[in-house]
Amino acid sequence: MVIGGDAAGMAAASQARRRRAPDDLEIVAIERGGYTSYSACGIPYWIGGDVEGPDALVARTPEVFERDFSIGVRLHTEATGLDLDRCEVHLRTPDGSSEKLGYDSLVIATGSVPVRLDLPGADAAGIFGVQTLDDGVAVRAAVQAGARRAVVIGGGYIGVEMAEAMVNRNIDVTLVEQAPEPMATLDPDMGRLVREAMTGMGITVRSGEQVLAFETSDGRVSGVRTGRGVVETDLVVLGIGVRPNTGLAADAGLPLGVAGALRVDVRGRVLGAENVWAAGDCVESFDLVSRRPVHVPLGTHANKQGRVVGINLGGGYATFPGVVRTAVSKVCALEIARTGLLERDASAIGYRFLTATVKSTTRAGYFPGAQPIVTKLIAEKRSGRLLGAQIVGNEGAAKRIDALAVALWNGMSVEQMTGLDLSYAPPFAPVWDPVLIAARKAAEAVEADLVADPGAGQAPSPGTE
Amino acid sequence: MVIGGDAAGMAAASQARRRRAPDDLEIVAIERGGYTSYSACGIPYWIGGDVEGPDALVARTPEVFERDFSIGVRLHTEATGLDLDRCEVHLRTPDGSSEKLGYDSLVIATGSVPVRLDLPGADAAGIFGVQTLDDGVAVRAAVQAGARRAVVIGGGYIGVEMAEAMVNRNIDVTLVEQAPEPMATLDPDMGRLVREAMTGMGITVRSGEQVLAFETSDGRVSGVRTGRGVVETDLVVLGIGVRPNTGLAADAGLPLGVAGALRVDVRGRVLGAENVWAAGDCVESFDLVSRRPVHVPLGTHANKQGRVVGINLGGGYATFPGVVRTAVSKVCALEIARTGLLERDASAIGYRFLTATVKSTTRAGYFPGAQPIVTKLIAEKRSGRLLGAQIVGNEGAAKRIDALAVALWNGMSVEQMTGLDLSYAPPFAPVWDPVLIAARKAAEAVEADLVADPGAGQAPSPGTE
Repeated sequence: MVIGGDAAGMAAASQARRRRAPDDLEIVAIERGGYTSYSACGIPYWIGGDVEGPDALVARTPEVFERDFSIGVRLHTEATGLDLDRCEVHLRTPDGSSEKLGYDSLVIATGSVPVRLDLPGADAAGIFGVQTLDDGVAVRAAVQAGARRAVVIGGGYIGVEMAEAMVNRNIDVTLVEQAPEPMATLDPDMGRLVREAMTGMGITVRSGEQVLAFETSDGRVSGVRTGRGVVETDLVVLGIGVRPNTGLAADAGLPLGVAGALRVDVRGRVLGAENVWAAGDCVESFDLVSRRPVHVPLGTHANKQGRVVGINLGGGYATFPGVVRTAVSKVCALEIARTGLLERDASAIGYRFLTATVKSTTRAGYFPGAQPIVTKLIAEKRSGRLLGAQIVGNEGAAKRIDALAVALWNGMSVEQMTGLDLSYAPPFAPVWDPVLIAARKAAEAVEADLVADPGAGQAPSPGTE
Repeated sequence: MVIGGDAAGMAAASQARRRRAPDDLEIVAIERGGYTSYSACGIPYWIGGDVEGPDALVARTPEVFERDFSIGVRLHTEATGLDLDRCEVHLRTPDGSSEKLGYDSLVIATGSVPVRLDLPGADAAGIFGVQTLDDGVAVRAAVQAGARRAVVIGGGYIGVEMAEAMVNRNIDVTLVEQAPEPMATLDPDMGRLVREAMTGMGITVRSGEQVLAFETSDGRVSGVRTGRGVVETDLVVLGIGVRPNTGLAADAGLPLGVAGALRVDVRGRVLGAENVWAAGDCVESFDLVSRRPVHVPLGTHANKQGRVVGINLGGGYATFPGVVRTAVSKVCALEIARTGLLERDASAIGYRFLTATVKSTTRAGYFPGAQPIVTKLIAEKRSGRLLGAQIVGNEGAAKRIDALAVALWNGMSVEQMTGLDLSYAPPFAPVWDPVLIAARKAAEAVEADLVADPGAGQAPSPGTE
């Protein structure tokens, strides 16, 4: 039995089916909402009108799972309890009645839920999370009902993407962010570039402001009160993050770790539970750079983790190695990407580091369509090991994070990276790709630091023996 | 003294100057042509009208080198002889007179020259190489003089880029390629995709045809005779490759290796010569995958090698680690990239391998502007080590080669690559990036091959002990 019919759960189900036939393994998936295997990441683009929806966002419908994979799907069915001793899941069926369903193996893929603000007025109509396709249906209806003003709370991925969606719908949008700069998944110096670009797009960015309450009128939200006043609005989108949806698992005594996410082994088995597996937004991942468990709720990990669990459930062997926290987003023409540690992460772990930030172009400077790109690298002192990278730029900028993510994954130093054989032709890069320029500058910083402060290293200073 | 005023030579000169002041190190660069530090890779785009030229293609003029770097540049001055014992270079000056100039350290950065065909009529006017900015001036003049038809001989990078340039100039263009498919820097199955796309752009592609002679009229080329007939034309562009311009070095007894390129150590010093350095198209590189010396005349290597030589000349320490043969190109909307070994390279070295080719899209399938991308991976049998990768696709496809190049550089297996944390968001990739899908398919092929043919490995077959 699979609880949760989106990316992780259905990837697990499909992979298990590839290895075990229906007469060998019966598979049923329970889904609280009305859709399976959909791209939650596509919701902002559907609301913004870039893509059709909701059907276009569904990779495989329940009918396809039933017909082509012999996987049963029960929509609008919620798991309300887990009895691990009896291997039973308690369900609330679409008609509201209760049911118990037994399993031999269980996959928990319950995902995450948007963090909601425990503030006056927070339950008013017109305040939306953006997590499920059903959420998307609700926001889109509000937009189409004629909203003229929107407030997005939180300047992370969902926040900036929803801000773009509202701009595309000609809705006046205000982004409220508690941190000094939006996009707190970047260092503040890079987040500043995002704020400046968003402001240039006509988005009102109120960063460094805390939301105190929601103003309401007839039970609907009419304004957002911050420490600096009230922003009147027709709707509010919450983009302040998500938390693992693990209440059910916790009640059953399963082990929770970082941020309340389920703890699993490298194959995706829940720690201490023989026949319970978990994948996706509801589980911890291992951060290969910080060497600590982290909660990184992204669709790409959900798919990989689901596949790993499915292979193992199907009798094969696969592991999920971990993450380096790569992520990419855009707000209108501005592309934003990161991998590895931010400065504050590196400091918290105890690393000493140097940074290098370079401005360059995505193509040869003389080539039409060359766009600005700012690349920042964080490298460990002395060793020069790459610890993290961030990119802010226009078209063609962000996907360069992948080469940096692979370098990071392999523990390369910035000096080693200066030699990397990256592709060059004038329509694709300057002759020194921005990644290489940044590596050069970072390597020079590491070397200069050693020269300037030799006593900070392990070697005794010359002559101090 | 630096012989050759383009990328490698001037990068060496600039880096040496950064470390040693003019009163400590006098630097003079000899350049046969009329320009310094120009982007030869930009010439096709200048001829095609995408970029201005020739000045826009010059990164730094002789005046800038003189004024800002105290580097003397002597244009239209050709080195005609090297006397290594006396540390003198024999020069032919712009007025045709001879001169000898002494040096303490010499940097040979003489680049490469287009391979010319030793065929009847090959000396006719209207047959052009495309190697120097002066070549570009000549081709552009021929185009502007009203050429209506062009033949490009050779379907490599320069060939396909020049074909695009002619298309952009509304010139009827025929590409003649001796190999079965154009773009012989790809495997034929990927080259076929290039041929089909070029044909769709209105380019006549005659692959598998050998040029036998040039037809001439009044000393000008008027046609290209192949094994299958005559193609009438107003001009011919040679894109059949380049060879290292090392006659001078060979005459002086310096050691030549692959393809007649100069042999250098990791710091760029010519083997056996204490005070002679070399960089760029005239030197060998080490191929990190095949573990053999290769000749890879690309601007990106020329810049890196020149920088390394300059640092060493300036009293520092730097090495050029080698190449993995990454390259990228485009012809109109079609993007083409490769890294590592082709199938024929892998076979020649003795590798046994498996391939996986996947069709996907550059963005989420439902996202506007999602473009087709075909990714091919070559992986060693048993170990699954990535040996090479090729990409053919439309906008957003080719730069993905960089992540593959970094994986290759680090010796990753395709199984390891399935876990890579590459960036995902619908405007940038499908939830499984094409790179990851290809890695999955290749890893499955490696595993299936082991299962199907366990005796082919090192382990004795079960039960055969």
